[in-house]
Amino acid sequence: MMVYDDEFFMRQALKEAQEAFDKDEVPVGAVVVMNNKIIARGHNQVELLNDATAHAEILAITSACNYMGAKYLPDATLYITLEPCLMCSGAIYWSKIPNIVFGASDPKNGYGHYTGKNWPFHPKAILKRGVLEEECAALIKAFFKAKR
Amino acid sequence: MMVYDDEFFMRQALKEAQEAFDKDEVPVGAVVVMNNKIIARGHNQVELLNDATAHAEILAITSACNYMGAKYLPDATLYITLEPCLMCSGAIYWSKIPNIVFGASDPKNGYGHYTGKNWPFHPKAILKRGVLEEECAALIKAFFKAKR
Repeated sequence: MMVYDDEFFMRQALKEAQEAFDKDEVPVGAVVVMNNKIIARGHNQVELLNDATAHAEILAITSACNYMGAKYLPDATLYITLEPCLMCSGAIYWSKIPNIVFGASDPKNGYGHYTGKNWPFHPKAILKRGVLEEECAALIKAFFKAKR
Repeated sequence: MMVYDDEFFMRQALKEAQEAFDKDEVPVGAVVVMNNKIIARGHNQVELLNDATAHAEILAITSACNYMGAKYLPDATLYITLEPCLMCSGAIYWSKIPNIVFGASDPKNGYGHYTGKNWPFHPKAILKRGVLEEECAALIKAFFKAKR
């Protein structure tokens, strides 16, 4: 079996982000991986769904829960192109996802801005940041630059 | 026009919480009010939907956005029987709900546990706590007591 690495899955999350970009949504993408396999994908659909809660992570987690028929995802890894916001960090906590990998940081709306030294995820969750950081950040910068 | 007060709307949120209780869900309820009228209701459906993100507030906010055809709810008041968790506080932030009223406190999973002195809601949002606190808390206590 081919074993994929974090960059491989982050590229898949970037594909989702690109889809959001193409639809004029803030370009954030996410994939949920289990046993080396993508079980759910999501990209930001706040505009399309007219729903402020329709972030990539929320959609991907809901989709993964549906796929698994389970409310908890204790064996999953979530790849996100951007540092999760407070809402999405809470969703990650509740779904018990133990591995979180993100690309670009979000100093304004990322969880770190609010929680400070507090850890919003599960106590044993492992966080990895900065995977394909430049590509993830470039897409977001391009989006907001075009908006101005 | 009859003008309803916070207790009136919190009783409606409690009705939602009772519905959750009757379906063996953690009994939390929420209503979204605009111009003295309930535009959306929600109760916790984590078990039914097998989705860790299906909290009362997320469902009520999504429903209110659908009803309004808008991603922001800058004139709404959200009534919740329990202090919102980090995820739901984030959802309230993104939806720009400026008035938040909750009943019982949640020292374990409430936003206050994580954010400390930081304010996770919109800078101008107004928070009121403790409306029908005892009734809201009693329902949750009864639920977890029955589970043991």
